[in-house]
Amino acid sequence: MVKRLTLTEIDDSLAELPGWKLDGKFMVKKYRFQEFLKGIAFVNEIAALSEKKNHHPFMAIDYKLVTLRLTSWNAGGLTDLDVSLGKMYDEIYGKM
Amino acid sequence: MVKRLTLTEIDDSLAELPGWKLDGKFMVKKYRFQEFLKGIAFVNEIAALSEKKNHHPFMAIDYKLVTLRLTSWNAGGLTDLDVSLGKMYDEIYGKM
Repeated sequence: MVKRLTLTEIDDSLAELPGWKLDGKFMVKKYRFQEFLKGIAFVNEIAALSEKKNHHPFMAIDYKLVTLRLTSWNAGGLTDLDVSLGKMYDEIYGKM
Repeated sequence: MVKRLTLTEIDDSLAELPGWKLDGKFMVKKYRFQEFLKGIAFVNEIAALSEKKNHHPFMAIDYKLVTLRLTSWNAGGLTDLDVSLGKMYDEIYGKM
């Protein structure tokens, strides 16, 4: 049902999303913040969106650095949903 | 100034903190939640305490599983502060 993207499609998609990198079955990005609690506020926004979309990235908080890792388990790799969510995460970050 | 605990002191301390394990310079524990947003609420409580104590653990959110990793960079390993914070994290988890 859910179509996994090909490597070419992933390359084309990530080329339009600065900072996102392919890592195996995941797309990964690190977001840096001026303050620790700004990073936590970002995590809360991502969490709310994740529940809404029922698609939850791995999140790692290393003081002022937040790393997000996305994949679609049901497709065994990256899908259009991951790419569109990556774009949304960047928009949320851009507004902070 | 800040005294790093010896391996024996660490063993004795962690023996009283169920679920915490030594991993190199870190003490690590995984907390499981019934719901994703309960885990996020926990992360927020830990974040507030971290700012208050100016001591920030690594936090990893893998859907309903939250992993915390503690160390004292200024001591090059674990200190009494890490052990006391680990105990506080457990108390916060117990109240959720």
